This record gives sequence, C-alpha cells and structure tokens, in this order.
Amino acid sequence: MSKVALFDSSLRDGAQAEGITFSVEDKIKILKSLDALGIDYVEAGNPTSNPKDLEFFQRVGQMRLENAKLVAFGSTCHKGCDPQEDTYVNALLSAQTRAVAIFGKSWDFHVTDIIRTTLEENLRMIRETIRYAASRDREVIFDAEHFFDGYKNHPEYAMQTLAAAREGGASCLVLCDTNGGCMPGEIRRIVAAVKEKFPDVSIGIHCHNDCGLAVGNSLEAVLAGADHVQGTFLGFGERCGNASLCTILGDLQLKMGYECVPKEKMTELTQTARYIAEIANITLTEKEPFIGRSSFSHKGGMHIDGVNKNPKSFEHIPPESVGNSRRFLMSEVAGRGYLLNKLQRLVPNLTKESEETRRMMDRLKELEHEGYQFEGAESSFELLVRKELGKYRPFFEIEDFKIIGEAGGEDTPFSAYAMVKVRVDDQVKITAAEGDGPVNALDKALRESLEGFFPALRNIYLTDYKVRILDTREATAAIVRVLIETTDGREKWSTVGVSTDIIGASLKALVDSLEIKLIKDVEQHVTF
Amino acid sequence: MSKVALFDSSLRDGAQAEGITFSVEDKIKILKSLDALGIDYVEAGNPTSNPKDLEFFQRVGQMRLENAKLVAFGSTCHKGCDPQEDTYVNALLSAQTRAVAIFGKSWDFHVTDIIRTTLEENLRMIRETIRYAASRDREVIFDAEHFFDGYKNHPEYAMQTLAAAREGGASCLVLCDTNGGCMPGEIRRIVAAVKEKFPDVSIGIHCHNDCGLAVGNSLEAVLAGADHVQGTFLGFGERCGNASLCTILGDLQLKMGYECVPKEKMTELTQTARYIAEIANITLTEKEPFIGRSSFSHKGGMHIDGVNKNPKSFEHIPPESVGNSRRFLMSEVAGRGYLLNKLQRLVPNLTKESEETRRMMDRLKELEHEGYQFEGAESSFELLVRKELGKYRPFFEIEDFKIIGEAGGEDTPFSAYAMVKVRVDDQVKITAAEGDGPVNALDKALRESLEGFFPALRNIYLTDYKVRILDTREATAAIVRVLIETTDGREKWSTVGVSTDIIGASLKALVDSLEIKLIKDVEQHVTF
Repeated sequence: MSKVALFDSSLRDGAQAEGITFSVEDKIKILKSLDALGIDYVEAGNPTSNPKDLEFFQRVGQMRLENAKLVAFGSTCHKGCDPQEDTYVNALLSAQTRAVAIFGKSWDFHVTDIIRTTLEENLRMIRETIRYAASRDREVIFDAEHFFDGYKNHPEYAMQTLAAAREGGASCLVLCDTNGGCMPGEIRRIVAAVKEKFPDVSIGIHCHNDCGLAVGNSLEAVLAGADHVQGTFLGFGERCGNASLCTILGDLQLKMGYECVPKEKMTELTQTARYIAEIANITLTEKEPFIGRSSFSHKGGMHIDGVNKNPKSFEHIPPESVGNSRRFLMSEVAGRGYLLNKLQRLVPNLTKESEETRRMMDRLKELEHEGYQFEGAESSFELLVRKELGKYRPFFEIEDFKIIGEAGGEDTPFSAYAMVKVRVDDQVKITAAEGDGPVNALDKALRESLEGFFPALRNIYLTDYKVRILDTREATAAIVRVLIETTDGREKWSTVGVSTDIIGASLKALVDSLEIKLIKDVEQHVTF
Repeated sequence: MSKVALFDSSLRDGAQAEGITFSVEDKIKILKSLDALGIDYVEAGNPTSNPKDLEFFQRVGQMRLENAKLVAFGSTCHKGCDPQEDTYVNALLSAQTRAVAIFGKSWDFHVTDIIRTTLEENLRMIRETIRYAASRDREVIFDAEHFFDGYKNHPEYAMQTLAAAREGGASCLVLCDTNGGCMPGEIRRIVAAVKEKFPDVSIGIHCHNDCGLAVGNSLEAVLAGADHVQGTFLGFGERCGNASLCTILGDLQLKMGYECVPKEKMTELTQTARYIAEIANITLTEKEPFIGRSSFSHKGGMHIDGVNKNPKSFEHIPPESVGNSRRFLMSEVAGRGYLLNKLQRLVPNLTKESEETRRMMDRLKELEHEGYQFEGAESSFELLVRKELGKYRPFFEIEDFKIIGEAGGEDTPFSAYAMVKVRVDDQVKITAAEGDGPVNALDKALRESLEGFFPALRNIYLTDYKVRILDTREATAAIVRVLIETTDGREKWSTVGVSTDIIGASLKALVDSLEIKLIKDVEQHVTF
C-alpha cells in the first residue's frame, strides 16, 4: 500500500477561519489528539504572528509526540533581503521545530502586482530562504501559493518557482489552490505535469473549498502523483474552508487503498473529530462524511428494511470501521467496546457481557437521544457512571431557585437576578446574586450558597461556557445543550447539561462541575 | 454553451434528512423560489406517502410555474404485479404532474437479496411500469438506484436495467450513487461507458455525499456525458446528504461554461439559498461555497492587502456574480443594487446615489454586523426602511417588563411568568401572564396589555418561532437571533430580533410583528 502523508493545518490555516480562535491550551489539546490519531505533520502557526503562538512553541518544545512532526509556518524573506538577516525568517527558525513550511509566490501576477517585485527576485527569495532553513537542519516543505492559477497563467514561471525551491533544498513541493477555484480536470492535468518534471521529490496538494471540491481535488492530485495532502481536520479555514483531512483520510485509506495512519487508528476517527470540534467550539454538521451523527442514520422505511436485511444495501462502509454507529437500531451493540473501555477505568473487572455494561449502554443511548453528548464532557460522563454503578452520593441538593429579569436602561438592556435555596444534610441556605444574564446570576448565587459548606468552591471559576440549540424546529420543545469548563487553578474539567430551556441545561452542567470538584477533593486519587 | 438540466429533490430526497420536515406551506414557498431561479425540475414527493404530499399536489395543480416542471416520485410496480393495477403506481399518476421520476433496482444484489425477486422479473417491472406511465403522456425519468454499485458488481445486468427503462420509454436515465461510496474515477469511467451504449438519450447523475464527493462526482459525470444533474439545493438529504445543486450550479455555469439557469439569474443564487435555508430552518454553514456568509470574507492581513490591490488575488470569482458580498470592506458597494430594488418598492423615485439609499446601506451593514439577517424576515426589513425614511410612528411603547422563573416539581421543571407595562399615547397598562417558558409568557403578557387598545391583536397568533445562537464563543457576548412568523388567519408575516439574550431578541421580533399588524390595518394597501 502506498503511503500518503497527511499535513494538518487546523491550528494555522484553520485559525484563519471566521469565528475560530484558539487559546494555547486549545492548541495543545488539538495537537495531542492529531498526534494520537497518527497524523504525520501538524502545522501550528507562525511564532512571530502573535504572543500566543510564541508561548505555544515554547511550551510544546518539551512535549514528546508519538507520530506527528510539529511544523512552524512562515513566508520567504522579503524582497531585497538576505534571509539570514530577515527578522521573520529567523523567528520562524527560532520555533525550533524539525520541519518548517515556507510559502512563496508561484503566480506571476502576484509577484508583479501584489508583492510588486521582479520575477527573478521572487525566485531568489524562494531559493535562498529555503537554502538557509535547510542549512539549519530543517526539513523544508515549500508551499507554492496559487500554484494552479500561476500555472494556468504562465506555466514556465510556475515551474521555475518549484525548481528554485528544489535547488534550495525543499523536500516537498506543495501545490496550492489558494483561491479554491480549480476544477478537478485542471488539478489532474497540472499535478501530472509537475510530477513528470519532478519525479524524485514529494509532491503535496493544498486545496480550498470555494467550489465544494476541496476533497475531490485532493484525491485527484493523489491519483496524479501527489503523496502529501494538506488540509484541516474538520475543513475549517479561510473563506469556504480547507480540504477536510478527516474526509480525505476516510477516502484514501478505506476506499482507495492508501495508507495514511496506522490501520487500527481508523476506528478513532469519529471520536477524534468530535473532540476537536468541541475544543474548537464549532458545530459539526450532522451530515459530515464518515463522522457525522447522521452519516449512518436511516430514516426512509425502505432503507431501514434494506439495512436490516443487509447493511451494505444502504451503507458504503460499516459505521464501526470509523468508530461511528448506525442510528435506527436501538438494539445494536456498536459502541459497546468504546464504552467498556471507559467503564473499566472505574471498575476494572467489568466485561462486555456484564449487567452493568448493558445498563450503562441503555442509559447512554437514552441520554444521547435526549441530546446529551459526552465527547468533550468527560467529567459528566464519569459522574453518570458513578450514579449508575451506585458509587455516588450527592453533596448537596437544590431545593428551589428563582430567576428575575427586568428591562433596563439604554446601556443595560436587561438585568438578571437569581435566588437559590440549597440543602446540605439538614442545613438549608438561601442566597441571591446579580449577574450579566440569568445563567451568570444563577452560577454566582449557587456558589455563594455552597461556599460556607465547602470552602474549596471559593477557588474555582468557569473558563468556558458554550450553548447549542439542538432542534429549533419546535420552539417550545427545542433542546438546549450547555457545555461548561471549570478550573480550580490546577486542573480543568468539562461538564454538560441538557434541557428544554437554557436555565435548566446550565444548572445541570453547573451542578456537575461543582460535584466533580467536591469528589476530587474527597478522593484525592481521582483524575478527571 | 451546452445545456445541463438541474433536477431538485429538496422536497423529496431532502425531506429524508434527519431533522427536516416541511409543511405544505413550506413546500410551496420552496417550489416557487426554485422556479423563480430557473431550476428545470422540482421533485416534490410521493402522493401516496402521506396526506401532506397529497394536499400539496392538489394545491399546486392550479399553480402556474415559470420555468420548472413539477415531478412526482415513485417506484416501479411491485413484483408479480401489473403496473396498471398497482395502487402505488396509479397514485403516482394521480398527482397529474407532467413528469414523473420512477426508481428501480440496478444492483443485482438488491434484486435478489432485498426485494427478493428474479433478475428477469425486475427488468419486467422497470419496463412495464415506465411503459404504462409513458402511455399516460408522462415524461418519464428513470432513477437507476445503486447503478454504480450494480455496475461494479455485474455490469451487464446494470446495463440491462437501463435498456429496459429505455424500451419502456424513459426519456432520461439517471445513474444513482445511492450509497455515496463511489470515487471520482469510477464515476468517470462508468458514466462514459453508459453514454457510449446509450448515445441518444439524456443521461442523469444522482450523487450522495458519504465520501464528501457529491459535487465533484456530479461534475465528473457531466464531463463524461451526463446532461441532467439531480441533487438538493442546499445538499440536505439522507445520511450525509445529496449533491448540493447550489454549488453545482455555481461550478457548471460560472467555472465550466455550461448553461443551467438563465444567465441573469446567477446573481440571485445567494438570496435563494438563504431563503430556502430559512424556510427549511437549517443553519447554512458560513463557509458554504458561493453563498455562505464567509465565502468571500478575508481575515488574514496579507489577503486583505492582496484583495485591496486586486480582488482576483484571493477571490476565484467576483462575489457579486452570485449575489454575495465581500466581508471586510465597509466601503464597498456590493449589494446596493439589491437594496435599491427593495427601497424602490416603498419610495419609487430613489436612485443608487440618493442620500437615503446610502444611509440605509450603512444602517443595514451595521445591523448585519450585529447579527441581523433579513432574508426570511421581510416585514422587519420594511419596518426598518420606514424608520430610516421617517415614515414610521410607534403605536405603543414598552415602558418596563419583568420575567420571573422558578424551579418547579418533577413534571414542570421550570415555570415562567412575565409582567409588562405598555404606554399608548398617555395611557399606561400593566398585565401579567404565565407561559411555557419566559418568552411565551412575555408574548402573552404583551398581547394582553395591548388588546384593549388594539382589538385586532386578539386574532393574531405565532405560527413559528426559531432561535439561533450566532456566536457561542464568548458566553456573555453571544448573540441570539430570533425569527418569528405571525398570522392573522389571512396573511402571514415574518420578523426578526437580535440581542445578547434570548429575551431581548424575542421581544424585538414580537414588537415588530405586532406593529406590522397595526400598520397593515391602518394602511390597507400595504402588502408585507
């Protein structure tokens, strides 16, 4: 089986997407998760572009990665500069990564009209920057920006930019459809022409989805000789996004016979994608290929009948092969292995056939049906397991609460207050608080009411709060899912709540997050 | 320019998608909108599958369509049946559409293992059902279900099913990748083989997106000889969805030189897509090709600089060509024509250069930046125009309101009350109400407080209520958009409200919806 290297740019090109911003913590989580899946390269940004990226490279410098090479990203030196004296080039090298991606212009129009220099000078910038980086023992990946537009306009010059990169010592030439405007036939023809001219070097492809073709074009490039595919794991990126590596991985490895990640990792595809989505706080569309919640769900009666007779009648691959599951069969056992794995961390002697495993599986399905999703909310999941296995006692009870909201003046259109009544053993405490909104007020009042009983709660605070409306079809029956991240300054944990209203959902997630802290303090050995 | 016919199945295959259900009203709105854009065929369901579809065909029977042919959908007759005596086949014809789509099995495995009959009998079912429909003056489109899987398994038999359809009188043979598992190379090869064998009949393609390739595969099929493309306008459909016709239309017509809809209609692409999304109540991803809100937005500094120097540096087509707009240039004039068009309906003598047009444009951008979107909320837009043009006086004022929420018992987890104080001229009225949730309570209280002043408000009620959270990144800064549909029994109108909290957003949409009713009653000639 031919090997195709996957190069993930979620943390760099992905961060260019509207609405995406990563904390350093987020970036580290995503890096670890891609590494665990077996992705070959993870491009993580430009050390000079902002202080967050700099901090990231410093922290990651000490980390041991299993599979992935970390890649820093930057441009060629500026026109008229010696790369050794170019601040940006030196900053790129200061990230101390084994590999660097250096981009340069391959479209003559961009050279003359955008960066406004001569075609010859652009070739020098590419050649010398790459030569300098290679001389510092870097594996250099050359991103030929706008290669396809360049080739269509002036094929000889586009090829010269690749030759310059090759002379400089680049080990991979990545052909970028930067504007995402190429049709599949063009990609096929042009990649083949490049492969013919540069048979001895790795050829990469970098597609954007402006015509809905990023995945298809990437596959065409592989068929034409590319052995390195760039994208972002979930397809987010500038404008219409980058090629989705997750989809490409499924296609190349399961449908076309290429090897991208270790075979046994494919069943982690769904879990990895959903985890990254939670961290990036993007809503995966239900119909995402391979890993979406609807990808193997069957609604039509004839389809359900067909799948019952033989799954291949309406499924192109078995859902288990990517860690996903079929959606109509409530009796099906997909996912039990994954669940068991988690249960065994708490109760090591459980088996697939144990009564407890079966009960948990049923409960989990019930909750998922209600709209719960435990990827990204491990702590709520562990609480749930404790409850089901009888290893749980509540620390406190909410006996009552009230929310009051009122119209305000010009600057504060809405004020919110909350009153909460809690019981701990036989003591009752009532408190009130004002907040930025009803949920914030409720959070404050709840914690104030409990701090007297549990002083440790004084030092925890919310670091993240995410809300999703799961079904907006019927207003009064809409389901709200709230995800909360809490920290005590040392550790972080995530909890989830689902209800028909945002108040109820938030309260469930808040209560879970406080209970986790209390359990953590009682059972010092517990890691959540 | 070669013509490619577009066949939209949003109302049939699209309705198979998880979470999609259409009212008869919704279906009619979508049909009209696709017709106005110039789509050739609109498939609208099966008259026997449910009473809603039956009502739909009855109501649409009288409607005059400009461009589209309405298509009813059904299967071949059952095994061992005479099509003339098959209830389902007769029901299909009873819809009285000019064209019908009839699907049959092309994969021998499905014939023997799923419907469990002989290969010969299946050919008879295809041939005779189509012959019967054709004899009743229908244009018959044959959907060859699982054609590609069938061809890969038993090419001769798959071809025989097409030959049977042709003998029966089908005017178009549609090759379906029902399971969505085919790679582009397979599509190319197999469509070419079919075209070679059936050079004189229209060949169609019907792709699903299980491998992220539905658009690319559809284009490959066209390049290999197909001249009829099936899909759903926004790509929703069973599992991972159907091919997105909206994207395919952009690719075929703007990038590949085919003709699908009248040239001048292309600028309506974005507006049509957003309208259909509102009706179907699905959230269009921001990065949707051509029509997404991010499709032409530029975040990277170098990209912004490039686009300022020359838009083609980072845009594969001009955004105006599909009625979309660039997102960073606040001074840009894209969209002014569209706005003008709407303004002129209220103030006929306005021009593109009028001070009022400029002011409205600025105001609109401001509001869109805040999260407003007026597609699907025409009434709020018209109120906005009135306010900006000084053609508005408020009927009432909300002086104050309060919301009270409290924890309930087991069955009612949360109770909500609202108090509202309104002023009409110099009279003040305070009322209170209880509701299913805080918004419902607020709606009731508000209307009760106004009914004494404006008895007409007694007869209006909400028919739809949709909520979207636009930015869940920062909890306290998240933006909520609420869309409300109201009726007085004769007409319906839609309004929108945006705020940092759901209460504020709902209140704005509610107030707009009441004002519209009052304006309608005062100015009888106004149509919203």
